[in-house]
Amino acid sequence: MSESPALGLFDGVLARGLVREATSDAAWLDAMLDVEVALARAEGRAGLFPMADAEAIDAGRRAARFDIAALGRDATKIGNPVEPIVRALGAAVGGKPAGQIHRGATSQDILDTAAMLIAHRALSPLLDDLRGAADAAAGLAKTHRQTPMAGRTLLQQALPITFGLKAAVWLAGLDDAIVRLEEVRRTRLAVQLGGAAGTLASLGDAGPRVVSLFAEELALAEPMLPWHTSRARIAELASALGEAAGAAGKPARDITLLAQTEVGEVREGGAAGGSSTLPHKRNPIAAVAAIACAERAPSLVGAIFSSMIQEHERAAGAWHAEWRPFTDLLTTVGSASAWLRESIEHLEVDVAAMRANLDKTGGLWLAERVTAALVPALGRQEAHDLVTDIAKAAATSGRPFAEELAGHEKVRPHLTIQKITELLDPAGYLGSSDVFVDRALKAHHAKWGKNA
Amino acid sequence: MSESPALGLFDGVLARGLVREATSDAAWLDAMLDVEVALARAEGRAGLFPMADAEAIDAGRRAARFDIAALGRDATKIGNPVEPIVRALGAAVGGKPAGQIHRGATSQDILDTAAMLIAHRALSPLLDDLRGAADAAAGLAKTHRQTPMAGRTLLQQALPITFGLKAAVWLAGLDDAIVRLEEVRRTRLAVQLGGAAGTLASLGDAGPRVVSLFAEELALAEPMLPWHTSRARIAELASALGEAAGAAGKPARDITLLAQTEVGEVREGGAAGGSSTLPHKRNPIAAVAAIACAERAPSLVGAIFSSMIQEHERAAGAWHAEWRPFTDLLTTVGSASAWLRESIEHLEVDVAAMRANLDKTGGLWLAERVTAALVPALGRQEAHDLVTDIAKAAATSGRPFAEELAGHEKVRPHLTIQKITELLDPAGYLGSSDVFVDRALKAHHAKWGKNA
Amino acid sequence: MSESPALGLFDGVLARGLVREATSDAAWLDAMLDVEVALARAEGRAGLFPMADAEAIDAGRRAARFDIAALGRDATKIGNPVEPIVRALGAAVGGKPAGQIHRGATSQDILDTAAMLIAHRALSPLLDDLRGAADAAAGLAKTHRQTPMAGRTLLQQALPITFGLKAAVWLAGLDDAIVRLEEVRRTRLAVQLGGAAGTLASLGDAGPRVVSLFAEELALAEPMLPWHTSRARIAELASALGEAAGAAGKPARDITLLAQTEVGEVREGGAAGGSSTLPHKRNPIAAVAAIACAERAPSLVGAIFSSMIQEHERAAGAWHAEWRPFTDLLTTVGSASAWLRESIEHLEVDVAAMRANLDKTGGLWLAERVTAALVPALGRQEAHDLVTDIAKAAATSGRPFAEELAGHEKVRPHLTIQKITELLDPAGYLGSSDVFVDRALKAHHAKWGKNA
Amino acid sequence: MSESPALGLFDGVLARGLVREATSDAAWLDAMLDVEVALARAEGRAGLFPMADAEAIDAGRRAARFDIAALGRDATKIGNPVEPIVRALGAAVGGKPAGQIHRGATSQDILDTAAMLIAHRALSPLLDDLRGAADAAAGLAKTHRQTPMAGRTLLQQALPITFGLKAAVWLAGLDDAIVRLEEVRRTRLAVQLGGAAGTLASLGDAGPRVVSLFAEELALAEPMLPWHTSRARIAELASALGEAAGAAGKPARDITLLAQTEVGEVREGGAAGGSSTLPHKRNPIAAVAAIACAERAPSLVGAIFSSMIQEHERAAGAWHAEWRPFTDLLTTVGSASAWLRESIEHLEVDVAAMRANLDKTGGLWLAERVTAALVPALGRQEAHDLVTDIAKAAATSGRPFAEELAGHEKVRPHLTIQKITELLDPAGYLGSSDVFVDRALKAHHAKWGKNA
Repeated sequence: MSESPALGLFDGVLARGLVREATSDAAWLDAMLDVEVALARAEGRAGLFPMADAEAIDAGRRAARFDIAALGRDATKIGNPVEPIVRALGAAVGGKPAGQIHRGATSQDILDTAAMLIAHRALSPLLDDLRGAADAAAGLAKTHRQTPMAGRTLLQQALPITFGLKAAVWLAGLDDAIVRLEEVRRTRLAVQLGGAAGTLASLGDAGPRVVSLFAEELALAEPMLPWHTSRARIAELASALGEAAGAAGKPARDITLLAQTEVGEVREGGAAGGSSTLPHKRNPIAAVAAIACAERAPSLVGAIFSSMIQEHERAAGAWHAEWRPFTDLLTTVGSASAWLRESIEHLEVDVAAMRANLDKTGGLWLAERVTAALVPALGRQEAHDLVTDIAKAAATSGRPFAEELAGHEKVRPHLTIQKITELLDPAGYLGSSDVFVDRALKAHHAKWGKNA
Repeated sequence: MSESPALGLFDGVLARGLVREATSDAAWLDAMLDVEVALARAEGRAGLFPMADAEAIDAGRRAARFDIAALGRDATKIGNPVEPIVRALGAAVGGKPAGQIHRGATSQDILDTAAMLIAHRALSPLLDDLRGAADAAAGLAKTHRQTPMAGRTLLQQALPITFGLKAAVWLAGLDDAIVRLEEVRRTRLAVQLGGAAGTLASLGDAGPRVVSLFAEELALAEPMLPWHTSRARIAELASALGEAAGAAGKPARDITLLAQTEVGEVREGGAAGGSSTLPHKRNPIAAVAAIACAERAPSLVGAIFSSMIQEHERAAGAWHAEWRPFTDLLTTVGSASAWLRESIEHLEVDVAAMRANLDKTGGLWLAERVTAALVPALGRQEAHDLVTDIAKAAATSGRPFAEELAGHEKVRPHLTIQKITELLDPAGYLGSSDVFVDRALKAHHAKWGKNA
Repeated sequence: MSESPALGLFDGVLARGLVREATSDAAWLDAMLDVEVALARAEGRAGLFPMADAEAIDAGRRAARFDIAALGRDATKIGNPVEPIVRALGAAVGGKPAGQIHRGATSQDILDTAAMLIAHRALSPLLDDLRGAADAAAGLAKTHRQTPMAGRTLLQQALPITFGLKAAVWLAGLDDAIVRLEEVRRTRLAVQLGGAAGTLASLGDAGPRVVSLFAEELALAEPMLPWHTSRARIAELASALGEAAGAAGKPARDITLLAQTEVGEVREGGAAGGSSTLPHKRNPIAAVAAIACAERAPSLVGAIFSSMIQEHERAAGAWHAEWRPFTDLLTTVGSASAWLRESIEHLEVDVAAMRANLDKTGGLWLAERVTAALVPALGRQEAHDLVTDIAKAAATSGRPFAEELAGHEKVRPHLTIQKITELLDPAGYLGSSDVFVDRALKAHHAKWGKNA
Repeated sequence: MSESPALGLFDGVLARGLVREATSDAAWLDAMLDVEVALARAEGRAGLFPMADAEAIDAGRRAARFDIAALGRDATKIGNPVEPIVRALGAAVGGKPAGQIHRGATSQDILDTAAMLIAHRALSPLLDDLRGAADAAAGLAKTHRQTPMAGRTLLQQALPITFGLKAAVWLAGLDDAIVRLEEVRRTRLAVQLGGAAGTLASLGDAGPRVVSLFAEELALAEPMLPWHTSRARIAELASALGEAAGAAGKPARDITLLAQTEVGEVREGGAAGGSSTLPHKRNPIAAVAAIACAERAPSLVGAIFSSMIQEHERAAGAWHAEWRPFTDLLTTVGSASAWLRESIEHLEVDVAAMRANLDKTGGLWLAERVTAALVPALGRQEAHDLVTDIAKAAATSGRPFAEELAGHEKVRPHLTIQKITELLDPAGYLGSSDVFVDRALKAHHAKWGKNA
């Protein structure tokens, strides 16, 4: 295995977590060598040449060291790094077995299969971080199941919710993304093997059998047909990654909003934070970085979809145009997942601040409930308009909303002050919050056992 | 049902097929009214009010006519068209039942559920056209299973394939896209119901039961939680549509390339075509329009993913930003599907032109096969380099490749002229083409029965 | 002129302002007819046929009514709406002059030139709204030049600014976007005229002269060459619109954040606002809608750039793929501009709330200033670390920051309590805010005279 | 200066040319250090501290070596690499001067200014390659001014053009892109300096003067205001790069199409090409790679525009989200430019193949000209329909078009066979091709003197 690549200047922020290593040039080289060895083994098993040749190729590969910069330079001549790798591997193996390397394959077979392998491998730490974030969200959902806070729509306080419900929504989003990613990983990451024009012509009748064994060697799916210019697998992987970015970015956005100085309901307790010039600031660095990494995903997803229309049996550019977005998408979504996990796992929740913010509107925002209580008597529209008017009056006058209501001649016949006070108590107006928290936790635990 | 919307100036090209009607403003209005009626029926069934009220709402809606322009104007005040629709429906229903309309719901519940309904409905013609295109591709795959043609990589002739294999690749791509779209349609199109902050507070304990019945009324899936700011459903639908666009655009691109004047292997036989100023041209209009419609998809998919990070319990802009891309994506992918179907169903295949093009390189491109035949004697690298040199010499001198080979001193000891001639016959070098065609046809027929 | 198009269901929100009409199908039809008439007049002036024929074409066009739906339907056959329009115009004109219509032109000449005309016309209301928003921002910058408020970075309070400075930043962004749009409008919106393959072959030697006169007739720029497959003009227009969307979205985002219930520093005073179910809410609808419209722009800009690589002398799909993004971009940026203007023109500013929020951190956030005062004595790093520690201690203990500082043994030798209090006064730490406000106002007034 | 970064595995294909080095991590580190030194020098010149301190900072920086991986790791804590760099620089400088580093600046000031510097520097090789490509296109335009070839629309032969005209269109597109990039470089690449909240508070009254000197030190433009959350400069740079990508991708696409086996009108003569398994193929690697690199640009441009809406005085994520797309865009457009230059500079043109393809349609495609000649007698529509019918008959029967025309009873009265033959000669129907070539060459030479 190649050594771990050095951290780049921006990687600490934009390429957090183990996905960076799993998508590095060294990882790509390893994957392409693994693919060539697996192909040789498959062909050996299929009887195209003695198994000993395949083993010699394997051994030669293990003994050799490869120079990425030299391979990259030689890739210029041919337009991809596969042929230089095959040559270098051949030199390392030597003798007759060297002649069996890459048999029946075209460069795209190797590069596409390596991409699937890279994805399969990179998804391990990525899913681990997503699951860690989901577990942490599950912990918050459980702990704060009864913690009331303001629900906010269009950034305005709307109705009370619980922080547990908010965390349950994060959790369900993360679990959804995990399920989809696991599904894509299991069913859509397939080997590619078609030879120069997708017919496997140079393998004679042995083609389909070799493909089967090749898939077996690499523990990847076996495709029905070569998919050189059918990029749905890549697109589905990209989509699932984009979905994960959205699922990771959403809680991160909420956290930055809840951490605002004026809101102060949460704070990141991890190692990051602080500010270069402002010693008192507690920047929610992990959430900010999670957003930054997640926000890169949509354009990368779009780039992958833009490359789907590929010409004939190999595209003149659109295939090559996939390479970077593919790697970048894995890396940035992995980084977003790792940052989100960091943020949620160390999230400090200020229950008192949540309550204080909730009390700011003095019950005004439970107007909906009063409206509902008046509907039977007045009809929906009249009740709505009436309560709106009284709410505006209260907001203007500064007098308590409950008193304004109780004193109004159209309300008085239908609601007492006691009833109104009860209606305006947030803790009594949480609807199905608890049911929803239960569902999200149950679904999460059903998948991965008890956590948090 | 509202009447069919008038065709716009560009709709004939960019909004072909029935999807246009299924995504029109009239269809949106219908869907939102359907959703309000279904909600009332669900709440009636849940016992929140007498079923007769729900029926009165249903009846009122059927009797009324709604003015889209007026609703659009009133939407300006509140930021979405739902409240004006509720008011107009209330006016149409009148009396006490009017007070039950929209109970417990927030505007987003109605609009999101209507979006899911629009998607469900629009997918019918869209899938029908995709299936029609796939059937037509299956027909070509079957008919041209033995028709040799040039396989082309980087737009250069590479190795022989059959036109049947090319059509099978189109078919498999379309079938893949159909399967994914059907899956998303079945499992991910769910009702939305959460009320103002996602707690269903104003429905008391009845919330979850109402959601169940609501889903049942509309034959949509029931979500685990409200998903106001968890947009994975929208993203998965968008991705599946983007995948369909790619699957439709790929054959369309191939068709435009095969229809080039200098290639001349296919021609569109449909009604479209011709040129405003050039009477002799046979433009592959259907394929060109399919590409145009398919190429709009990736940026729309990207737009949907860009809107995934939504704030708190309702986003301040990102939700509204989804509306147009959502509709546009359905429309453009529907249009791409309809155009592709038109193109493939009327495709005229020139078998002789395929053969003539194939013969142009005089066997030069089966050099791979000669290389393979020399590998046992010379090793892969030397064989490759040798054949390359001879091929270049043949290309330069204009003498037949077979003769150049047979005359070379390093080749002569290993290959006779007969063997060389056999090696250079395209029909004998089609590898697993036939197996792949079989697989694609079998999979297609297993899904939808025998066609073509 | 065609009548104004009916408002669609979502247009009130997503297509505000006059740009909607300027980009409607009716506007496109008008523009294409204008282009055909201008071409005939140019060719008449160039002596290709009697000027009377051109005038007959003009007259025939004015007398006729055109059926958009029928034109749209006929466009299907040929792949664009130009030929049906030419036929319909020919029928309206009749006789020999009808034979002069569209002379030497190809469909793309007409459609591209019409697009430039649409852009030129739509930019009038769009720029008017952007300028209105800029004027309103200039008014706020002037009025609130001395209004201190919290500057916020990463959504945390950082250092004091003035609301005037914030408005000046909005202003400068809007003015920049206006300048760039005006520049593109003046220099890059050019007629297109090349004929079927860009050679103007059927005009003989008269081609270049006709292009000049054609540009003159339409008051558009004259291009050096036909630009059928050189789409830089479209891309620069799209970019300038994207820049305007960003410039409009930024203040809108700030406004939604400042309007948050817990921040409460601004409120929209316009007609929109309110909420369907929550009578007390004051949603910043205009800002939310501005964000929604602005957020659609980037993917549309990306779509235009994606279509730049066009084949040979006319693209097989990429050209058609531009049409909708082109129109949509004008519409959505026009709408964002109109909404932003509405929001800023009616913005209610709560100066007291700004001050109250500013006082919340009790001077903690002017720690930077204390740090700076200690640097001469302690060096930057030690001063920074020391003040950070004291700030954290103050935050933890709840004791005033000034007292904690004054009492610390390492601070005491260097700073008195009076000096510390002065250092922690926000009004004394506004740096160049005033200079920057002046600059932005001066630049704005230099462009468009005194406003606000 | 840091040493040149090692070539990555895919860099030979996707990061060709010198732009790669100019955008590497080492280049970023250099740029940030240059910015800190320039800031110190500006502040020294403004009298904030002795000039000797600035010189000590400069000297300390030159003497030190920095460890990118360690800086990247430390960036994790704070969310950007600037503070670690400042600390490291401070350690290198030592003593009192170290305390003057980064005075009044915030991390974003340094990173944004460094980005502008990176752009300024990277544009040198990028523009050099674009100009090289333009010069090569100018050479082709001059040489092939009279070389007739098929003009192709929707990938069908349409009318004759000259290869000189095609090259002139490439040239004009490249020159346009160069002009715009140079303009952006000259006017929009400005320093960033605002301090923590954009007020330059800690610089007292000296702020504006320091900004001026800072800009002077770096030879970048001086901004009117700090632009921390006004990203128009970045967006305009991105747009200009996207335009360059389009201008580079267009000729590359044409070259791949002209190099098709069945078309064979051009061939790349450079060092790249060949195929791993197919010794005879001459892949147009440079053009394919240029397309691949150019096709990455649109989504990166979209990403930059997506990040324009930034919150308050520093964005919580959107700013960080710009970093990679910014660098990637410079690199990929630089690479596209270098590849295109390689492709055009070595392009081998097959004039005979152009003529042979032109003759394939036997004059059918000059039907337009015959139509035009019949218009005076028959009117546009009837002439068009008549010629269309005869063309179809000729295509079906295989008889020469000229004979079919001459023999038709409706044509005979108006056109002799001699006249028809003359009308169908491509060389006589090139319209303004020559004028357009002249214009493009004259404009090119006016800018950069005589070339080619």
